[in-house]
Amino acid sequence: MKETVILEKLKEKKLKNPILITGLPGIGLIGQVVGRYLVEELKAPKLASLISPHFPHQVFMTKKGKIRLIKNSFFLFKGKKRDVIILVGDVQAINSVGQYEVAGKMLDYLQKWGVTEILTVGGYSTGKISDNRRIFAVTTSEQLRAKFEKMGVIFGEAKGSIVGAAGLLPALGSLRGIPGSCIMGETHGGYVDSVSARGIVQLLAKYLDLTINLKRLDEKAEESKKVIKKVEADLKKSIETQYDSSAKGATSYIR
Amino acid sequence: MKETVILEKLKEKKLKNPILITGLPGIGLIGQVVGRYLVEELKAPKLASLISPHFPHQVFMTKKGKIRLIKNSFFLFKGKKRDVIILVGDVQAINSVGQYEVAGKMLDYLQKWGVTEILTVGGYSTGKISDNRRIFAVTTSEQLRAKFEKMGVIFGEAKGSIVGAAGLLPALGSLRGIPGSCIMGETHGGYVDSVSARGIVQLLAKYLDLTINLKRLDEKAEESKKVIKKVEADLKKSIETQYDSSAKGATSYIR
Amino acid sequence: MKETVILEKLKEKKLKNPILITGLPGIGLIGQVVGRYLVEELKAPKLASLISPHFPHQVFMTKKGKIRLIKNSFFLFKGKKRDVIILVGDVQAINSVGQYEVAGKMLDYLQKWGVTEILTVGGYSTGKISDNRRIFAVTTSEQLRAKFEKMGVIFGEAKGSIVGAAGLLPALGSLRGIPGSCIMGETHGGYVDSVSARGIVQLLAKYLDLTINLKRLDEKAEESKKVIKKVEADLKKSIETQYDSSAKGATSYIR
Amino acid sequence: MKETVILEKLKEKKLKNPILITGLPGIGLIGQVVGRYLVEELKAPKLASLISPHFPHQVFMTKKGKIRLIKNSFFLFKGKKRDVIILVGDVQAINSVGQYEVAGKMLDYLQKWGVTEILTVGGYSTGKISDNRRIFAVTTSEQLRAKFEKMGVIFGEAKGSIVGAAGLLPALGSLRGIPGSCIMGETHGGYVDSVSARGIVQLLAKYLDLTINLKRLDEKAEESKKVIKKVEADLKKSIETQYDSSAKGATSYIR
Repeated sequence: MKETVILEKLKEKKLKNPILITGLPGIGLIGQVVGRYLVEELKAPKLASLISPHFPHQVFMTKKGKIRLIKNSFFLFKGKKRDVIILVGDVQAINSVGQYEVAGKMLDYLQKWGVTEILTVGGYSTGKISDNRRIFAVTTSEQLRAKFEKMGVIFGEAKGSIVGAAGLLPALGSLRGIPGSCIMGETHGGYVDSVSARGIVQLLAKYLDLTINLKRLDEKAEESKKVIKKVEADLKKSIETQYDSSAKGATSYIR
Repeated sequence: MKETVILEKLKEKKLKNPILITGLPGIGLIGQVVGRYLVEELKAPKLASLISPHFPHQVFMTKKGKIRLIKNSFFLFKGKKRDVIILVGDVQAINSVGQYEVAGKMLDYLQKWGVTEILTVGGYSTGKISDNRRIFAVTTSEQLRAKFEKMGVIFGEAKGSIVGAAGLLPALGSLRGIPGSCIMGETHGGYVDSVSARGIVQLLAKYLDLTINLKRLDEKAEESKKVIKKVEADLKKSIETQYDSSAKGATSYIR
Repeated sequence: MKETVILEKLKEKKLKNPILITGLPGIGLIGQVVGRYLVEELKAPKLASLISPHFPHQVFMTKKGKIRLIKNSFFLFKGKKRDVIILVGDVQAINSVGQYEVAGKMLDYLQKWGVTEILTVGGYSTGKISDNRRIFAVTTSEQLRAKFEKMGVIFGEAKGSIVGAAGLLPALGSLRGIPGSCIMGETHGGYVDSVSARGIVQLLAKYLDLTINLKRLDEKAEESKKVIKKVEADLKKSIETQYDSSAKGATSYIR
Repeated sequence: MKETVILEKLKEKKLKNPILITGLPGIGLIGQVVGRYLVEELKAPKLASLISPHFPHQVFMTKKGKIRLIKNSFFLFKGKKRDVIILVGDVQAINSVGQYEVAGKMLDYLQKWGVTEILTVGGYSTGKISDNRRIFAVTTSEQLRAKFEKMGVIFGEAKGSIVGAAGLLPALGSLRGIPGSCIMGETHGGYVDSVSARGIVQLLAKYLDLTINLKRLDEKAEESKKVIKKVEADLKKSIETQYDSSAKGATSYIR
């Protein structure tokens, strides 16, 4: 196997104005938490899997004694107004050549379905824990910006670079004529932030006109708050380290 | 030479329901010890060699003053009921792209022979030395699971990931319709474990209905036990280090 | 996306005896400062962009809330006597295979425009701050050498190797019959050297018969001089370290 | 430029039973010293150059102010009985995929000339300085072994692996039906060993029936002996370190 491969699972003829939502691992695992939550709550069946020689050469042993390849998966939710393809995965490609190849194959596949919008989800690490998690975004489309700004999403404030698929998919998609955005939940960066993820899920429910039960995520967020208290306590202890230059430099690095 | 290449050595027309057994280097070198033992005891001739630019760019100097490429080799044992292809080798590919390419070429080749089952052999590191080495397994087939469970092989208990060919071959083989399993001898992980390898050879002899003289392996196992005593003595000295978190993390990492 | 791609932006029919000037990041950022200054002062519109899987898998978030791919860009200045293509960029390819691929694609593109000369700009690190920044060069053409020597450029004195596009473009270009040179501003190597960049811009203005306002660069150079004073003060403190062998070894390493 | 390329320099129609002698950088630089000495003494003109994206992405600045690509070069000596192609170079490819690609391209090229024997030259590091530098060898041909043994070359004693082209060329050449050997001058491994190189040149002169003036090499060997005395003095100081296990392990690693 020399190239990234898409394995189709579901027979579908045509999708209705489909949008891609990504939930791949990254800062604060916000993307992954959001993506998996959507798939579970929306009971979205698997549309396709993607496997790649640019993923680690490992397989997982499952609790049921099975073997599972490392992969990224596309799930499909057929909405009232538009269809939603949700991309989740174990990993991202391990280097630049791999990231570009995988993003290219994903876009080929999404174009086959006529995807009209790419919306990637990530975390934006600020190195501190704010009570009110803001949602930052960047986009390739003024129209999308207007829509998101109406919903309170902040543009022009997040700085630095976006590493990996959350940045490459909308950027490379734009070259193919597909508008896209990356929305980023404000987060500390040092732990899995279900509170920030909850905010993104709420935004997506509103944006896509979906009914999503937040109960399970509320529970996770409660646990997350406990983690935060511990992190805050740790923070106080190491406050000097927090403000050194290298730590600040890291705050603009998101996935 | 830009790609992995198979060099055929033996003229064979058709194989009888062939199974692949792998014996590549990995944890506790169990796979390699088992594979080489089978080849020697069964006096299996070489079917083919595989060389790859994804192997290290080295050649070996032999005792006879010859030059030998680093390679993986397929040997053939023509059994009463079914033919057995045994894969052994010096190394595995050195990165992910190489591992996927080599596994793909191997599967192309095995499909040419109509291989109906893939059985990889590895070690499962527990970080301790148990008197009774268990055999763990994962599989892509419920039928194979049932067969192995009858023989005492444990499913659903091994956790984590399998690195390299022992995982990729059955996982990628399954995508091509070939059922497969990975059986793993319980082992410490820090030394070559001939005792655990002996258990696997016994299992394979039974599973494949082969007559295999275990005498030479018994001798190795005796030596191995001496090594164990030394390792155990060392263990007592460094018992604290053994139980730190990073050491525990490593126990689920097998090849 | 598996390969480096050129995205054309400007419709042009034919160029007049075009020369390539490069301004990519390297030692002292002299190339990048020079390239960007030329583009801004000459108000050169963008001719094309180059994106590559050999660039880092990141995108930039802009102040305006947009997403921008990491890229190299070609700008075009239509001069009286000859046209000038200016290459600037965020990065260079991250490894050897990438550097050769990107340089090859650039040359393909430049040959399409009939480029007749390649002139790359870099810094030559001497590890000290000289009052009179000399300009060193190497070339593939005796004719070009004669021209540059008349203007005070020094040949045969710079030693060692040139890393990256500043060396590969003229060297690989020469194989295709395009003569080329690399001119290098003398610099300390440890900071952005606008003084040295200013000298290169002056040389280029004369060489290409361009009118370039140096005012903004003078301001930068003033700032740069303040930085130098600080660097010199630091130098005095660490004078012993400066003269160890590894520091000397580094002085011949330029981009 | 995505692939390794051969640039032909000399118009030749047919070669007479040509043998390849390699002189690439490796242990003790013996190969490189021998290769360059042969080219200079035999006044062999350049037959072809090889450039590769698997070489470092650097160019050299020459004393004459020129730019020179990093490359490997083939030189041709037209002998009385047989023609000799001498391969010398600045570097070897920087990783395994590159080494296999470059070796493959070289063999394609050599096959075009009908090369009938491959003879690579390297150093065999013993970690000590012996008065009588022995010459070790490995080969893919019993006939070649017999020839070299008559001349005092030692087979079956060198252990371990050969890294890089010195091993890959005869090994991969053998797969194409071209017999080959690697001869290795015994050397300390820690410095350029002209004494050992001298022995190899003498052997080659005899083997190929060439008249080679050893005067310049004698001078180098004299200098080399002075270096040795210094190395020996250093050795005495660090004698304990010499005999630790890691140092011993390194002795079998040659290029």
